This record gives sequence, structure tokens and C-alpha cells, in this order.
Amino acid sequence: MAHERLNIAFHGQNASQFRAGFESFIGNGHRIVQLSDALQGQGEREQFEQADVIVGIRLNAHMPKPSKLRLYHAPAAGVDAIDPSVLPAASSLCNCFGHEDAIAEYVMAALLMRHVPLARADADLRAQRWTYWAGSAGALRTELGAQTLGVIGLGHIGRTLAQRAKAFGMRVHACNRSAITDPAVDRLWPLDQLHEFMAAADALVVTLPLTEGTRGLIDAQALSAMRAQAVLINVGRGPVIDEQALFDALKQRRIGGAVIDTWYQYPDPARAQCAPSRLDFASLDNLVMTPHMSGWTEGTVHRRQQTLADNIMRLAQGQPLINVLRPAQG
Amino acid sequence: MAHERLNIAFHGQNASQFRAGFESFIGNGHRIVQLSDALQGQGEREQFEQADVIVGIRLNAHMPKPSKLRLYHAPAAGVDAIDPSVLPAASSLCNCFGHEDAIAEYVMAALLMRHVPLARADADLRAQRWTYWAGSAGALRTELGAQTLGVIGLGHIGRTLAQRAKAFGMRVHACNRSAITDPAVDRLWPLDQLHEFMAAADALVVTLPLTEGTRGLIDAQALSAMRAQAVLINVGRGPVIDEQALFDALKQRRIGGAVIDTWYQYPDPARAQCAPSRLDFASLDNLVMTPHMSGWTEGTVHRRQQTLADNIMRLAQGQPLINVLRPAQG
Repeated sequence: MAHERLNIAFHGQNASQFRAGFESFIGNGHRIVQLSDALQGQGEREQFEQADVIVGIRLNAHMPKPSKLRLYHAPAAGVDAIDPSVLPAASSLCNCFGHEDAIAEYVMAALLMRHVPLARADADLRAQRWTYWAGSAGALRTELGAQTLGVIGLGHIGRTLAQRAKAFGMRVHACNRSAITDPAVDRLWPLDQLHEFMAAADALVVTLPLTEGTRGLIDAQALSAMRAQAVLINVGRGPVIDEQALFDALKQRRIGGAVIDTWYQYPDPARAQCAPSRLDFASLDNLVMTPHMSGWTEGTVHRRQQTLADNIMRLAQGQPLINVLRPAQG
Repeated sequence: MAHERLNIAFHGQNASQFRAGFESFIGNGHRIVQLSDALQGQGEREQFEQADVIVGIRLNAHMPKPSKLRLYHAPAAGVDAIDPSVLPAASSLCNCFGHEDAIAEYVMAALLMRHVPLARADADLRAQRWTYWAGSAGALRTELGAQTLGVIGLGHIGRTLAQRAKAFGMRVHACNRSAITDPAVDRLWPLDQLHEFMAAADALVVTLPLTEGTRGLIDAQALSAMRAQAVLINVGRGPVIDEQALFDALKQRRIGGAVIDTWYQYPDPARAQCAPSRLDFASLDNLVMTPHMSGWTEGTVHRRQQTLADNIMRLAQGQPLINVLRPAQG
């Protein structure tokens, strides 16, 4: 089979995490370079412009033009920082999944933590206080398995999460644009019944990407449909939940709590530390705040390296690509 | 069907947790009393001696003799504080399960907590530190699903746990006295290969009751078979793991850590606060210490009330009992 030698550029700090050991997936038949985010090192601009394949998460009109590009591959699912209008017509845009197992572990850990007070029990017993001892009055826990999970968006993440939740005995509901079935989902709700769906769950998990259709989907009215004790988890994209509405619902304790992993503002090369929102979420005690970490595991990196290598080999051999978000034109 | 009116005594603080609402399970056709642990209240001794049914967790030769007893029912699985030689010959000894869902949630929470650092991530992000941000070097988590679970004892708890672990993609091994199969168990080891079994797992969970055959089963030699990074969890009975050997293995960091819920000494009515061991486990930072709480949930109480009521109704109607540990004699 024909095999073409390609110029492959891993662009930026994020992509660099997928560079180590990449030859073990793809062999030594290509030229691979690692470029900095700023592209201001010796020869970096030219290598970016001459690349056949770029692995990265950020492309816009202020950056050099990769005019020979045939494949822009995000090593991630979300491509909201990649401007498709900047891509050469002959290039495809692809993404990676492989994070669903990691995200499901994060969500299940966050859910179980609300029922099993390990940290407080440990601190108390070290001080000889048997606070949660079986048989003690007032020590009874609730069970996650007795609750209803509502998954918003039934893609890779939603299905993987549903399957784990089902194993605990949870009732699993899902709300999805298209009507698809899944053996782990007890009830599927259409998107136009989002509020009724939200009223039926004890824990709601947003797994949606950010698109013009999902931005602000979970607004003040949607939040007001939630049960007073229900928890809202976001492992999709921050702005799918309206920023001010989320802050207000937590501040006024109108929902049971939140676990927020995806945010409204992020560090950038010029600002390594920043708050994740213009609003003071850190002043609230009824949410768990994490730094967009839910999918970031050794397993995710390994599975994404496999996807990247698979697609680059397909390109080199003239075979159809997988995970194509925008095909090459003409 | 014949229906006999029974004298039912709930004995002690632990049993009292199953008393509230018990009529909703069993109706109003019996005489139900709640007795204190010490049996020194007005008429308590006589009510204990005259009971047809006692619900409790502690019976020994120093206590009044319930000479008319026909059913001693533990509202728990473990009966190690009930001396069967004190039971009248005509009485049966029964126990309850229904705690397996709760214990499986505790174990999965403890396991996931070792992979998903929610508390530290939250504290850091509140200080604008994005420690575990996806794409950051050094921030990669491990996945629970990539590991091997070893379940010691494949009873109610072991099977329920195995099924949840399997849903996360874990390899599940079990070690059990008798050769039984379970769809969630990938490999079953016989008890005489305990040490080889322990060497093959990343997380080991003791679910065994305390018997003369299990006391000290996990001794220094067994612990030395464990992988250096493996974690040991005990939700069975404390003394199944040798006290000194466990302390030494943790102190000398020869295993990856431990999560210990069942202990070597407990509070009693004369001593509400006490350390859970004669050894200073609280001085160690590589274990999670909890106060025998893993099975104690609203769901467990509800399911056990159902079992208690079911057996009492069977007794009243002359039908065979369930969960019988020692049948009535003669």
C-alpha cells in the first residue's frame, strides 16, 4: 500500500501531552515536530505553515496560515477554539474521544462523595469520634442507587456514565436532541421537555458540547425546574449553563449543589492564574469547583494517541478518515 | 391462615434503629417493646425473659435468659456478639443482609477517591490554581477502570461489589472457599492460592465474616504478597486482618494504602469514645479510617425491616424461616 511521508506538527502545550511515545503508535516514517503555543521559536512559524498535519486545540485568523494543511486534528472532543473558516479548503478537521471512561469516573466519584462522607468520618475517627457508626441515631446515609440520574446529552460521555449509574441501581433518564435508545437509559426525554426532565432527577449531568444551540440552554428557568435537593454537574462546556443563573441558584440555595468542571474563563499563556468566572463562585460553599480535569487521565491520552495515529496513517495511505467534523472540500 | 400474637422485643440502641415504623411492615397484631441495652429499666428484664422474638446484636451468659424465645433475629449480617450456647434449644437464630448496596457504594467511593482528587482540585481552584487542568504536564490521573479488583469472599457483598466494579471496566478477581461462578468475576481463585491471588490485584477488599477460619487470615505473610502500590479495604470484620501486621505494613509503607471500616475495638455503653485499635493507626497518613459505617444507610434499614417482618410473620404463621444460621432444635 502507498505510504506518504508527512510533516506532522504538535502545536502547543496541550498537544505536547500526546507527543511522548507517539512513534510507538505511528512508527518512524514521518517528520514530527513539537511547536510552542506562541510559534515564535526558531523556524516554528515555517514548520507550522508547511505542516501536512497539525495536532492542536487552537486555530484562528491571528495565527500563521498552514496553507499545505490536509488534516487538523484536535486531540480532544471540543473544537470551540478552532475557527473552521481559517482551515485550508483541502484540509479535514477531526477530533478525538476516548475521555468518556475518565469523565464517568469523575462524575461517579463526585456523586458518591455526596452520599459517603469519607473525609469527615476519617477526621472524626482519628479523634475517637464514631460519628457514622452503624446503628447510631442520626448517622444514616442516603444511597446513590436510590436516586434518579438525568443525563443531558446522550453521546459518548452520556452513554458511558449511564451504564455505570445503572450498575448502582439508579434510575437513568436522558434528554437528547435525537431519539436514540440505550439499554442503560430507562427513559428518554425530547429536548422540548427539558424542564420536565430536569424536574424528575436528583442529579443532572451536562455532557453537551458548546454550540449556538446549546449556549445558555440551562438558563434561570431551567434551573428553577430542578428539585430543591438536586445536584447539577457540568462536564460539558461551561457556557451551556448560564453563568449568572448558576451563580444565583447556588447563592440563593435554590438547588442542592453543583459540581462544576467546565468554566467561563480559563488561564492563558499571559495569565497562568485566574478565577474560572467573573462571578465569585469561590465564595460559595455548596459547589465543588474543579479545573476542567474530568477527562484527563493516562487512559484518555493513550486512547487519543491511538485515534491520532490511526487517522494520520489513513491520510498517508489515502483511506477515509474517522471522527471527521468537517471534511476536506473539493 | 393461623396467626399467633407474639411478644417482640427490640433490644438495645442498635436494634432501636429498626423499630421506627416497624408496624408498617408487620401490622398491629403483635406486642412490640423497645428495651435498653442494660435492661435495667422498669420491667425490662421481665420483658426480655418473656419475649418470643428478640431483635438484637448481643446475647451472652451474663444477660437474663429469654427462656420462651423462639426467634433471635440480628438486624445485621454479623452475629459474632451472639453466643449460640445461650439460646434456648427451641429458638432459631437468623440474620439480615440488605447492606450490600450500601457497602458497595462505600467501597466504590473509597476506590474512586484514590483516582479523582476532588477535594484538592477544589481547594486549589478556589485559590485560582488550575492544578489538574487537562493538558497540563504532571496532571494526568490514573483510571480505576484500568485496575484489577480482588474480592476476598464472594457472598452478598462481594457479588454486589464485583458487578459495580465490572461496569467501570475493572478486571475482577475473587478468592472464595467454595468454587462458585458469577458473571462479573473474571477469575476465581481457591482459598489455598490466597497469596497468589493477592499478588495479582491493585485493590483488595475483605468482605469476610469473623469465624475461627477467617480470624487472622490476612496475616503478615499475606500482606507481603501484595503489590507495593495496592490498597487494602476491610468492610468485613476487623480481626480477619491481623492487627499488628496491618499496622506494620502501613507504617513501613510496604503497601499502597488502606481503607479500614471494621476494627479491633469499639465503644461500649461505658466508653463512648475510644480508639479503634490498641495500635496508633491515627498516627498514619496512608489509610482512611471510618467507624464501621459502610453498610449503614436508609436503604439498608428499610430492606432489613422487610426481612425482620417477613421472618416474624413466617414464625407467627408456622412457616419455615429464611436466613437461618442455627435452626430451632427438637
